[in-house]
Amino acid sequence: MTTVAPAAILLLSGGLDSYTAGAMARADGFRLFALTVRYGQTHVQEVEAARRAAQALGVERHVELDLDLRDIARSALTGASAVPLDRDVAHEHDIPSTYVPARNTIFLSLALAWAETVGASVIVIGVNALDYSGYPDCRPEYIEAFERMGRLATAAGVGGTALRILAPLQHLSKADIVRRGVDLGLDYSLTHSCYAPTPDGRPCGRCDSCQLRARGFAEAGIPDPALERS
Amino acid sequence: MTTVAPAAILLLSGGLDSYTAGAMARADGFRLFALTVRYGQTHVQEVEAARRAAQALGVERHVELDLDLRDIARSALTGASAVPLDRDVAHEHDIPSTYVPARNTIFLSLALAWAETVGASVIVIGVNALDYSGYPDCRPEYIEAFERMGRLATAAGVGGTALRILAPLQHLSKADIVRRGVDLGLDYSLTHSCYAPTPDGRPCGRCDSCQLRARGFAEAGIPDPALERS
Repeated sequence: MTTVAPAAILLLSGGLDSYTAGAMARADGFRLFALTVRYGQTHVQEVEAARRAAQALGVERHVELDLDLRDIARSALTGASAVPLDRDVAHEHDIPSTYVPARNTIFLSLALAWAETVGASVIVIGVNALDYSGYPDCRPEYIEAFERMGRLATAAGVGGTALRILAPLQHLSKADIVRRGVDLGLDYSLTHSCYAPTPDGRPCGRCDSCQLRARGFAEAGIPDPALERS
Repeated sequence: MTTVAPAAILLLSGGLDSYTAGAMARADGFRLFALTVRYGQTHVQEVEAARRAAQALGVERHVELDLDLRDIARSALTGASAVPLDRDVAHEHDIPSTYVPARNTIFLSLALAWAETVGASVIVIGVNALDYSGYPDCRPEYIEAFERMGRLATAAGVGGTALRILAPLQHLSKADIVRRGVDLGLDYSLTHSCYAPTPDGRPCGRCDSCQLRARGFAEAGIPDPALERS
């Protein structure tokens, strides 16, 4: 008897977290359907990185959606203000200006639609509560509330298929994530994390995302191959 | 002292429900920000109706977003199959093929982003549990679950502003909605409800939406001005 692997929708940004979360889900036996959104982010380089990551993960399908949030979601990442540089990310716990209102809720909602359409009951998201404690929509209680809502939202839920949101990085440090990905054989040179890349596309090294990534690789004792390349 | 009316995001489809819900919120003193989505619906005439309704409601701003769901949300309304005609809407209680996976969740999520951006703590949606008992994302328990999730999703929620989802039509019949709208002086000739309009844009009279609308006007004892016009 041939069994078909269960399907999961992967929210894939092109950064190292979602790539690692996807690889963990694949290692757990899921067929992946990857969803990337061009939402008006100034660092649109990440979409090309998502394409590379989707290919490396061998996803069943990769959909890139266009949804310009600039009219409705004010954020440094949608160009409303400059991306802050040289913040002390280790000690600041306010909500940074790179927070995009309701972004994870929008992305999870889109994943929910696609999950129902392809018959998946699992959505994979690379949120991480430790490094991004400033983002409200990365907290475990938020993810649980979305899961509860999602189970009521769809015909699949009415039919009895219980939606699950997998957030396998939820309680890992960035260093743990990097170690886990390297164990899984991931090529992090494919990924892009920087919020404020230079005109020729190289990471700035100074935004929150660059700092958190650099700290993760440093703590893991592993050189960042994306920096080696650039 | 001048007080500024509180802001509310109105999900405005161009049908009679969302127009009436918006008018009720306006009568309750809200300034309205109307959001309409071109999601790949075959009956895109409703977007023009939304524009007329937004103008009639005197909204502060009307945003039309493009978000093509056809790749990820299989539905008769996104062209995956023919819109069913001549169903016995009074007696069928299955989930119809016009159900669009996670559509209300996606729309509410977009409204949540805009709410946070303009400082609104209220979202108005014209869902109606009685007529559309077949749609899972019109049920009161779904709306409540979204509200709970939305309060955890945003920086505004973290700051203590409790999100409210207003669904003023939730327990009204279509006839009640029509009566209420007429009392408020609404011009329903501006609205469009049909899922399968004729090539020249007139309502088919046979889809679920046309049938429910016709039944509502008939029960209210009021002629439908949209039909008078066509």
